[in-house]
Amino acid sequence: MEKPSEDLHGNAPDNSSVVLLLVDVINDLEFVGGEILVEHALPAASKIATLKERLRSAGVPAIYVNDNFGKWRSDFRHLVAHCLDDDTRGKPIVEILKPQPDDYFVLKPKQSGFYSTTLDLLLEYLGAKKLILAGLTGDICILFTAIDAHMRDYQLILPNDCIVSQDMNENERVLKYMERVLEAEVKPAEQIDFAKL
Amino acid sequence: MEKPSEDLHGNAPDNSSVVLLLVDVINDLEFVGGEILVEHALPAASKIATLKERLRSAGVPAIYVNDNFGKWRSDFRHLVAHCLDDDTRGKPIVEILKPQPDDYFVLKPKQSGFYSTTLDLLLEYLGAKKLILAGLTGDICILFTAIDAHMRDYQLILPNDCIVSQDMNENERVLKYMERVLEAEVKPAEQIDFAKL
Amino acid sequence: MEKPSEDLHGNAPDNSSVVLLLVDVINDLEFVGGEILVEHALPAASKIATLKERLRSAGVPAIYVNDNFGKWRSDFRHLVAHCLDDDTRGKPIVEILKPQPDDYFVLKPKQSGFYSTTLDLLLEYLGAKKLILAGLTGDICILFTAIDAHMRDYQLILPNDCIVSQDMNENERVLKYMERVLEAEVKPAEQIDFAKL
Amino acid sequence: MEKPSEDLHGNAPDNSSVVLLLVDVINDLEFVGGEILVEHALPAASKIATLKERLRSAGVPAIYVNDNFGKWRSDFRHLVAHCLDDDTRGKPIVEILKPQPDDYFVLKPKQSGFYSTTLDLLLEYLGAKKLILAGLTGDICILFTAIDAHMRDYQLILPNDCIVSQDMNENERVLKYMERVLEAEVKPAEQIDFAKL
Repeated sequence: MEKPSEDLHGNAPDNSSVVLLLVDVINDLEFVGGEILVEHALPAASKIATLKERLRSAGVPAIYVNDNFGKWRSDFRHLVAHCLDDDTRGKPIVEILKPQPDDYFVLKPKQSGFYSTTLDLLLEYLGAKKLILAGLTGDICILFTAIDAHMRDYQLILPNDCIVSQDMNENERVLKYMERVLEAEVKPAEQIDFAKL
Repeated sequence: MEKPSEDLHGNAPDNSSVVLLLVDVINDLEFVGGEILVEHALPAASKIATLKERLRSAGVPAIYVNDNFGKWRSDFRHLVAHCLDDDTRGKPIVEILKPQPDDYFVLKPKQSGFYSTTLDLLLEYLGAKKLILAGLTGDICILFTAIDAHMRDYQLILPNDCIVSQDMNENERVLKYMERVLEAEVKPAEQIDFAKL
Repeated sequence: MEKPSEDLHGNAPDNSSVVLLLVDVINDLEFVGGEILVEHALPAASKIATLKERLRSAGVPAIYVNDNFGKWRSDFRHLVAHCLDDDTRGKPIVEILKPQPDDYFVLKPKQSGFYSTTLDLLLEYLGAKKLILAGLTGDICILFTAIDAHMRDYQLILPNDCIVSQDMNENERVLKYMERVLEAEVKPAEQIDFAKL
Repeated sequence: MEKPSEDLHGNAPDNSSVVLLLVDVINDLEFVGGEILVEHALPAASKIATLKERLRSAGVPAIYVNDNFGKWRSDFRHLVAHCLDDDTRGKPIVEILKPQPDDYFVLKPKQSGFYSTTLDLLLEYLGAKKLILAGLTGDICILFTAIDAHMRDYQLILPNDCIVSQDMNENERVLKYMERVLEAEVKPAEQIDFAKL
C-alpha cells in the first residue's frame, strides 16, 4: 500500500540493546516425551517469569519466539488460548508465562527463530546487540536460534536454569558447546549482572 | 522445542499450485491520500471478493499478505477488529473482504510480502507455482511483491480490476511494466480461465 | 571450519557510510537488444569511470554487483576476461570500467543485487548507509536492486547520466518512480555533493 | 541488466537430486590449532577425494562451500592458489582436493554455507534433495551447514571418515547429535549405497 508515513513500515516503538527471547514456552506439550519435558520445564518457567519481571523493570523487552505448530492459519493469542483452555500438559507453564500486552511475538515455522521469520528485522529496529535466550528445548530450538544469532553477531547470554531439554545431560552438553563455540555467557539467571548489560 | 513429529515443523495442510495473495486489503486507510484511495479500492473490493469466492470453490487458498503497520505486537485478527470497530475509512472494504477461518495470513513489516516474512516458505509448502495478486497499491506493495515473486520463479496473474493505486494512471503504467518485465498475465478477473490454471 | 580469530568470519577491511554499486557493467551484451543498449551504455561508462575515480579519492569503495549469467562455476575475473578477450559487444565498456584490485564484487544469480547474495552483509560490515547506484539497466536490475535497498533502509543516490536502459524513455520514467517512491536523490553525477555525503 | 533469455538468470546446467558439499577444504590452516587439525584432515582428504571421484562417475556434482576468510575481494581460484603457492599448512590437502573445472563453488562469509550466500538457490536449480557433507570442521561449519540444510528439508548423508574437527571426541559427539536431531545418515564413505541415492 501507499507509504503514508515512516510509522507504517517497520518502526518499533522500543529501543533496547538487550532483548529477552522466550523460545517455545507457549506449548501444549502434547507429544511423545512431553510428559518428561514438562517436569523440567515447570520449575524453569518460574525462573523465567522472575527473570522476565526483572528485565521488564529494567526496560528490557521480551519477544515470544514460538512454533506455529504447523498451523499457519492460527495466531499467537489463539495458541495461548488453546494451551490454557484445552487443559493441556503445557497449561501450568503457559499460566506462569502468559504474555503481557507489551510483549512482542514472532511465530516460527521451523526450529530456529530466525529462519523464515521477521525476528532479525525486529531486533534490528529494537537496536538489540545482546540476546538472553530462555525456554525449550536447549538442545534443539534454543541451539538452532543461538547459532543463527551468533552468525548475525549478537552476543548471547544463556541463563542455564531457564533452559531445559528432555534429556538434561544433553542440555548440559549443548550449553557447554554454546559457551565454547558461540562465546555465550552461561550462568544462573540471578547471576546476570544487569548493571553490565 | 523437541520435534515430536513432522506435523509440528512447517507442514501446511493444503496443496495448490495456484494461490491468491490479498495485499494490504485489511487497512484503515487513515493516512494522507487514503480518502482518494478508498474510492478506487471500494469497487475493486467487490471484484476481489467475487474472485476469492470463485477461487475458493476451485480449491485455491487465499493468503492475506498485510502490513503490520509498525505495530509488531498486534496480530492479524486484532488488525481486522481495529478496521471494523473503530469506524475507519477502510471499514467498508474490510467488511467486504473479511477473512474466513480457513484463509492464511502473513504480516509483512515492509512493502514486499516476501521481505522478512514466512511467505516464501508457506508458498513452498502449499506447492504454489502461480500467484494471483490483488489489492493495494498497484504501484508500491503489489509491484514490490510481484518483483520478489518473479525472482523466485512464480508465474504471476494480475487481475487489473482488482488492483488499485492512489494515482490510477500510475497504476496502469505499473501494470504494463509488470506485463513486460515480469511476464505477468494482466486481465480482468472474470477473464481468468480457471480451467487453464 | 574452526574459528581461529575474528578475522576469518565476515570482517571487511574498509569502513564507509557511502558505497558505489556498479550494476551489471561487466557484460558481453551479446543478446537481442544488446546492440541498442551498448550505444546508451558506452557514454555512460565514461561518466561512471569519472564518478568512480572521484569516489575512490574520497575513500568511497566500489562493489561490482554483477550477473553470473547462469554460469555458476565461473568467477568474476573470468567474466571480465571473457568480455575483453572474446571481442564482445561489451568490450569497450569493460575496458573503461575494468575492476581495480581493491574493488569488491558480488555475483548475483537474479536481477536484484540483494537476492541470494552476500551483498547485504558486506554493506553492513562496510557500515554503508547511502548507496550510489550506476550501471544497467535502469528499468530492471537497477530498479530491483534499488527497491531491495530501500526496504533495507539504505538511502539512494542515482546519478541519472550513469544509468541506462534499452528504452531511454522507460529509463526516465523509472528514475522518476524511484525518486517518488524510494525517495532517491536523482541528479547528474557531477552534481553529487561529496561534502554532504 | 535486460533479461535477454532464461539462460541468464539462475539456470544451472546440471540436474541431480544428490549433491556433494565440500566444506572449507580449501584452507591454509594457518591459525592456532591448525597444526592439530591438519593431522586429522590429511587422511580424511584422501577419503573425500575417493568419494568425490565415485560421485563424479555417478553424475553427482560437487560444490566447494568455502570460507572467504574475511577477504571479500578475493575469489575462489585465488584462494586455491594462495594455499598451494604460499606453502601453507593446508597445501597437501588442497593438492588432493583441487577443484576441477566442472565443480561449483560458493564463498561463505560465516560458518553456515547457507547464510548470506547463493547456496540454497543453486541447490534448488540443481534439483537437490539429498546432501552429502564432507570437510571441516565437523563441530562448527559442518554442523551449522547441516542444521540449515535440515530446516530447508534436505536429507543429510554424513560420511564420518570424511568429516574432522580439532577435537575428534567432540567430532564424534556432534556426528551423533546430527544423527539424532537432524536425522542424518552417518556411515563411512564406502558404505554409502549409490544405488539407493
